[in-house]
Amino acid sequence: MIRVLVWNEYRHEKKSEKVKEIYPNGIHEAIADFIRDDDIEVKTAWLDQENCGITKELLDNTDVLIWWGHMAHGEVPDSVAFMVRDAVLSGMGAIFLHSGHHSKPFRYLLGTSCNLTWRESGDSETLWVIEPGHPITRGIDRYFTLPHEETYGEPFTIPTPDKLLFIGNFSGGEVFRSGCLFERTNGKIFYFQPGHETFPTFYDKNVQTIIKNAVRYVAPVYREFIDCPHVRKITDEETYVIK
Amino acid sequence: MIRVLVWNEYRHEKKSEKVKEIYPNGIHEAIADFIRDDDIEVKTAWLDQENCGITKELLDNTDVLIWWGHMAHGEVPDSVAFMVRDAVLSGMGAIFLHSGHHSKPFRYLLGTSCNLTWRESGDSETLWVIEPGHPITRGIDRYFTLPHEETYGEPFTIPTPDKLLFIGNFSGGEVFRSGCLFERTNGKIFYFQPGHETFPTFYDKNVQTIIKNAVRYVAPVYREFIDCPHVRKITDEETYVIK
Amino acid sequence: MIRVLVWNEYRHEKKSEKVKEIYPNGIHEAIADFIRDDDIEVKTAWLDQENCGITKELLDNTDVLIWWGHMAHGEVPDSVAFMVRDAVLSGMGAIFLHSGHHSKPFRYLLGTSCNLTWRESGDSETLWVIEPGHPITRGIDRYFTLPHEETYGEPFTIPTPDKLLFIGNFSGGEVFRSGCLFERTNGKIFYFQPGHETFPTFYDKNVQTIIKNAVRYVAPVYREFIDCPHVRKITDEETYVIK
Amino acid sequence: MIRVLVWNEYRHEKKSEKVKEIYPNGIHEAIADFIRDDDIEVKTAWLDQENCGITKELLDNTDVLIWWGHMAHGEVPDSVAFMVRDAVLSGMGAIFLHSGHHSKPFRYLLGTSCNLTWRESGDSETLWVIEPGHPITRGIDRYFTLPHEETYGEPFTIPTPDKLLFIGNFSGGEVFRSGCLFERTNGKIFYFQPGHETFPTFYDKNVQTIIKNAVRYVAPVYREFIDCPHVRKITDEETYVIK
Repeated sequence: MIRVLVWNEYRHEKKSEKVKEIYPNGIHEAIADFIRDDDIEVKTAWLDQENCGITKELLDNTDVLIWWGHMAHGEVPDSVAFMVRDAVLSGMGAIFLHSGHHSKPFRYLLGTSCNLTWRESGDSETLWVIEPGHPITRGIDRYFTLPHEETYGEPFTIPTPDKLLFIGNFSGGEVFRSGCLFERTNGKIFYFQPGHETFPTFYDKNVQTIIKNAVRYVAPVYREFIDCPHVRKITDEETYVIK
Repeated sequence: MIRVLVWNEYRHEKKSEKVKEIYPNGIHEAIADFIRDDDIEVKTAWLDQENCGITKELLDNTDVLIWWGHMAHGEVPDSVAFMVRDAVLSGMGAIFLHSGHHSKPFRYLLGTSCNLTWRESGDSETLWVIEPGHPITRGIDRYFTLPHEETYGEPFTIPTPDKLLFIGNFSGGEVFRSGCLFERTNGKIFYFQPGHETFPTFYDKNVQTIIKNAVRYVAPVYREFIDCPHVRKITDEETYVIK
Repeated sequence: MIRVLVWNEYRHEKKSEKVKEIYPNGIHEAIADFIRDDDIEVKTAWLDQENCGITKELLDNTDVLIWWGHMAHGEVPDSVAFMVRDAVLSGMGAIFLHSGHHSKPFRYLLGTSCNLTWRESGDSETLWVIEPGHPITRGIDRYFTLPHEETYGEPFTIPTPDKLLFIGNFSGGEVFRSGCLFERTNGKIFYFQPGHETFPTFYDKNVQTIIKNAVRYVAPVYREFIDCPHVRKITDEETYVIK
Repeated sequence: MIRVLVWNEYRHEKKSEKVKEIYPNGIHEAIADFIRDDDIEVKTAWLDQENCGITKELLDNTDVLIWWGHMAHGEVPDSVAFMVRDAVLSGMGAIFLHSGHHSKPFRYLLGTSCNLTWRESGDSETLWVIEPGHPITRGIDRYFTLPHEETYGEPFTIPTPDKLLFIGNFSGGEVFRSGCLFERTNGKIFYFQPGHETFPTFYDKNVQTIIKNAVRYVAPVYREFIDCPHVRKITDEETYVIK
């Protein structure tokens, strides 16, 4: 059983009628709905819960964290962001959606500013598959189109991804590395660009397939935080970790 | 002084009136014209010369090889392709242009099929800079547009590039990793997609800037083929190469 | 069921009494013995069979190819090597052992010379785990020691591996990237350095664990050779592949 | 002219007679001495100066920062560490020496814990060149030996380096990725393991050659922090950045 935690900022849905109409129960519930399966169980958490709804114990029992945030990245305490970062380094999978590129856990994991060029103008986006044999792109044709998405453009100041899976092409002309995979210590991190709050992107079948594929792909085979052992040489043959 | 060799298939220019009109002295001369500089000297070679105009001695005295080929990749003997491959591995820089993605030296160096999706329909192409701080993208704005280019599309079956420098966006909808950098042993390899023979692409100032930047970037700092030494341990402190 | 094909040069075992004593049925049978499992079925092939015991149909029905060769790399016809290369690019997993670093399929897939420094002097080798969370290193402690192995040393002229899993440390002083993972199009390639024919390396429990882990890791999730489609734009919305 | 800033924690040299004897003017002065050249000018700064001796203006006028720290990483304020990180992302080169693997700027840039296994037992270390053609390894033989160094061992929890240049082999048995190159946005980062305070490592000619090579290699060709522009589409042809 893969244990997923969907974390949502959950502010737009309360403040904007337009967003509320599209995601009446919040983006997290929309995502949870299509992720849930015989082999996948889903919990949710959001910003305005105590400690962002996140505890060390919860993360220890989470295989994959999905993160959606946008306007309130700064309200996530560093202590929470570091807890998430360390859980990923220990092996927890992580999927950052859309404006999650600027969330603290994503930036702290990658180290760069994770800036990008952007524009809200209702462009359509066509996403092209770069690696047709990858588990995350299974079931997706050569490309698919979202009628409306927020435009994200290069340069996207991330470290070179370990694998580039999708390039998005916006009707306004911009291109963007819309699906990027990173490996950091024991954890796999997938960034996926679609998911602006004012569009029904999370009801798109292709988007759902990709996120669900990603859940199964980034789920850990192993979970352990690698610390910094002080070792002692005992004999010529043996070296022991000092307790 | 950087010593450049521009290699051209040089067949289209003889067979097609349209191509001849655009490149009356051959694509190689058009490239040589804008590459030549106080610190860059240029020679040319082409397919129908003896041994493709290539000798080991010539490659030993070449810092950067630029390669344009299209319809006659199969007529380049393996012996020539291997000579080029080994020169690159020893440190010679290489720039493969446009349909050079299917040339023998490029495929032998990368190991994959280097296939791609393609279409000739006179699309325009907008090339976006992915790494604005890279020496090869210096002097290029966020993007530039070529009014007509042959459409190349993903998937492009190359190994993940060490650095992705440009993504091209075609008016027909396709996207393509149009500028890719690879390092192989001591050699740097730049693949750049523009340059279809029926369009005046090599007269475009941005294209010229990029190729000239690339010449300076892939030029070697060191040149040596690393072979497979059989070494002998002489004492506890020393290991010698066996002559 | 994972279908494994173990390919062996199978010459040393016939020519050398010492090797025959260690591997009386050939290295391929020794490997097959510990690979075979409820979810893994194993076939074998060797150099002196017709066409090296390899057909396109056999490769189409192989999930993982294990390759051991040494003194007769040149006797494998290019046609066979290219068939193997293309099967890997289509998704077949491949594990190259020891002197397989100089085999044609390995070199054709990676494009570089794959040279290394070497010495036969009965050194011991300690292999250190670089990525303790990787599926291939599961069940292996921080390090393990082989009492005798052929010494391989850097530089090893491969492209930078996608993931470095083991570094070997020889008692004569050399170090070597002994476990390297590469991804090429749809195929995963694992190179593992231990396995000299004059030592009983393939009876070592750690070596067996690693190779068996690798079989499960490089087995494909998808298998298709990506060719080079010529596409036609039909309408503003649609692009079709031309049959 | 390459403008180098050598930053040193500068505590061991004051507290330990042994260290003071080796580096009477501080490790920073020992490094400055061999770096300084016709094309390289050097400034120094240390922890106990105001704001660690670092200002934004100083970093704006620094091409390469060399960092040595060990026991007091936590005393570097986050504000200083972030200033260094952002300078690197904008293009300033950075060289982190020895225990600088656990410094805040290094960890913030790479995102992982940067932990490693360690032992102080006076082992000798042999450093092997992995990439003989790289500008940083020029002038270094196949390997060189330091009579004493602090033992660092794998796993070293860094992201996979863009290029691995040295592997160290300790007499106690450990191996370590002792020379690693990373690229992050516009900045190049070199980590080099030797340099324990109780050994005269920085007087070793090979160590000096490598660090000086690295200064020239990581010096920027371009310097600009890439922020996150909000762009507006004006016409079908043009997109402008909104001031």
